[in-house]
Amino acid sequence: MVRTRPLKVALLGCGVVGSQVARLMTTHAHDLAARIGAPVELAGVAVRRPARDRDGVDEALVTTDAAGLVSRGDIDVVVELIGGIEPARTLIQAAFESGASVVTANKALLAQDGPALHAAAEKHGADLYFEAAVAGAIPLLRPLRESLAGDKVNRVLGIVNGTTNFVLDRMESTGAGYGEALAEATALGYAEADPTADVEGFDAAAKAAILAGIAFHSRVRLDDVHREGITEVTAADIAGARKLGCTVKLLAVCERAEDGRSVTARVHPAMIPLSHPLAGVREAYNAVFVEAEAAGQLMFYGPGAGGAPTASAVLGDLVAACRNRVTGGLGPGESAYAQLPVSPMGEVVTRYHVSLDVVDRPGVLAQCATVFADHGVSIETVRQTSSGKEDGGAQVVVVTHRATDAALGATVEALRRLDTVHGVASTMRVEGDQGTGSR
Amino acid sequence: MVRTRPLKVALLGCGVVGSQVARLMTTHAHDLAARIGAPVELAGVAVRRPARDRDGVDEALVTTDAAGLVSRGDIDVVVELIGGIEPARTLIQAAFESGASVVTANKALLAQDGPALHAAAEKHGADLYFEAAVAGAIPLLRPLRESLAGDKVNRVLGIVNGTTNFVLDRMESTGAGYGEALAEATALGYAEADPTADVEGFDAAAKAAILAGIAFHSRVRLDDVHREGITEVTAADIAGARKLGCTVKLLAVCERAEDGRSVTARVHPAMIPLSHPLAGVREAYNAVFVEAEAAGQLMFYGPGAGGAPTASAVLGDLVAACRNRVTGGLGPGESAYAQLPVSPMGEVVTRYHVSLDVVDRPGVLAQCATVFADHGVSIETVRQTSSGKEDGGAQVVVVTHRATDAALGATVEALRRLDTVHGVASTMRVEGDQGTGSR
Repeated sequence: MVRTRPLKVALLGCGVVGSQVARLMTTHAHDLAARIGAPVELAGVAVRRPARDRDGVDEALVTTDAAGLVSRGDIDVVVELIGGIEPARTLIQAAFESGASVVTANKALLAQDGPALHAAAEKHGADLYFEAAVAGAIPLLRPLRESLAGDKVNRVLGIVNGTTNFVLDRMESTGAGYGEALAEATALGYAEADPTADVEGFDAAAKAAILAGIAFHSRVRLDDVHREGITEVTAADIAGARKLGCTVKLLAVCERAEDGRSVTARVHPAMIPLSHPLAGVREAYNAVFVEAEAAGQLMFYGPGAGGAPTASAVLGDLVAACRNRVTGGLGPGESAYAQLPVSPMGEVVTRYHVSLDVVDRPGVLAQCATVFADHGVSIETVRQTSSGKEDGGAQVVVVTHRATDAALGATVEALRRLDTVHGVASTMRVEGDQGTGSR
Repeated sequence: MVRTRPLKVALLGCGVVGSQVARLMTTHAHDLAARIGAPVELAGVAVRRPARDRDGVDEALVTTDAAGLVSRGDIDVVVELIGGIEPARTLIQAAFESGASVVTANKALLAQDGPALHAAAEKHGADLYFEAAVAGAIPLLRPLRESLAGDKVNRVLGIVNGTTNFVLDRMESTGAGYGEALAEATALGYAEADPTADVEGFDAAAKAAILAGIAFHSRVRLDDVHREGITEVTAADIAGARKLGCTVKLLAVCERAEDGRSVTARVHPAMIPLSHPLAGVREAYNAVFVEAEAAGQLMFYGPGAGGAPTASAVLGDLVAACRNRVTGGLGPGESAYAQLPVSPMGEVVTRYHVSLDVVDRPGVLAQCATVFADHGVSIETVRQTSSGKEDGGAQVVVVTHRATDAALGATVEALRRLDTVHGVASTMRVEGDQGTGSR
């Protein structure tokens, strides 16, 4: 089914990922043609600064007129790697209107405006693929959208931001504080000069919104995702986790409520047992656990970022979009038929690790325990240790059973008000307690 | 795009997997219809023994006339879960001739006759999906065929047989011998009454053939796969591996030669470092490592067998095949354009762990080392320990650097012929030495 007219691809953005896409399209041209059933060629590359030297990209293809490129009329697939909301959104819409399919890695735009993009793709009979938007090179969205299309996903639990995983891994392995570990990540190129999007959890939250929407066949917006970053995580938190046989990871957690009538999506630091496969994910790697009714527990692991890995995901989508052009097929569109509402964070059911600085005298532990009981929160373990100092301070560390986040939050508030409690040293959620087949 | 005529599915085989497929088609009917864009119904179930009670399957649908069912003319998708070569092959061919698409979990048939099946599918414009044939519920073939379609896969390294992993895991964790661990696997239902296909590596070899064919876009037949089972693995082998910081796994290894001009595929027990993610795969779980040029190292992990997990994979394929019926699309067919030849085992480059019983006197270690050198095999570590017995025996344990399997095999043969060597206690390949981001 090889046809002679080449498929034409417009590349928007030629940075770390885009330059790798351009390179691989050249070096793998023979393989791509065989796999697609037609040759594929780079028809134009839109950039902001044309003067910059771009190894391996034909200068004649470079333009600053992105809008003109996507609207040329002869483009089969537009690959959008600019990122951010505008001008990416306008360019993608223009691409669909010109009859092109779109491959994008733009998680922020998808999390904010996914439904409108999907609607435009459907209206024009085009494809919208975005594997690279979540977990870089790891094939995750295609398995969720297609391989698990006959199953019921109940939970997605993952490490989806490489920068924060690198920082937390360094804190874990060296005992460093947050600032020191972040400085190392920046020096090594794992964190950007302005790390806000990563360390405050915005990047992971956008990915959580995309994952939850796909997993639960519902619309989940960025605003629906509860978000906490890692800037408050201390070396003491990580040492405390270690005492419980846990480590601290920034997790994206998407869950179907037990009654099946709603879903939740959240991003926050959490303790997970060292025996959990996610605990072993080091440096800037990503990994995502998926729990489905029939399939059971699946894990997907790999590089979550980087030019070449992300380009691999983009090219996989590019081959799919091109193949559909050749065969007349169409990839899966938005699937939001289930229309499950997103519950607020207070309704999430989870476990807490609470560390309290208290007065060291008989009865204080019982008094704290009563506060938990009064809020309907059951305690799994409690440990009291004297500080050994003359001022008589002691520490009470509690790990709870599962309860709503609202009840846990109210419990902590009430503990703060006890005059025997000097302060709440830390609170952290505990996840991943289900047994698995991996040690 | 919902249409009213339901898609009709014929199910061939209603055992452990088939009964779960039938159950999920009923309980998930609403979701399947929404995801496909049309309702889907079970039109017939072909079985050998109709009298058996089948929970949840309408008796009126059950037939012993499988050939009649697939040739009815109104079947959209045939799901083949009989297994084995015949009558499965004839029925699948008949299904294509009647215009149906086919979903199968039949690894033996695909490894033996894949090209003919793909040709029949292509001739009739139908789909052939087989995700469930390799690694059960783990989405692996779709990611390899589609997500990595723009990348170059260099290596696939995996645990693809749950029974043997269970046996080796038990040997590792309890110190039991092979026979005892197999008996436990049988008692717990992880091994069949006749475990030959699993323990001799036939099942894993069929999966390796399928994986290698897909990964390298070439044809790899079952006969091309070097195969060794786990029946010769002893408790001493596992104890020896532990001394090196390794564990023993039955691995399927598919590799592109360094010059890119040929590929190899093999199944054998191998030592892998405890730090390698595959070392942590316990019980009957499966996991597959994929190394691609741009994507880097990816891992896919999950239940490799079982009724519900395998049914999940079947249903994912069923949704894809049905969607294509609705949209007029066609899934990827056979991709064997690269036509890379399969090299024999002797050309595989790997490492060996060799344990020798030798005479305990000066010069023997040097004599052994000379044999390695004479065959061009470089030694990484050598360790000599006296047995402490009066007869003066000693043990020499060698781990080699990478060399061809032929050179390693010839080295071991030559060692056997030394009169200072009482015997070769064990030889085992060592894999998975590349660093990864997981501890």
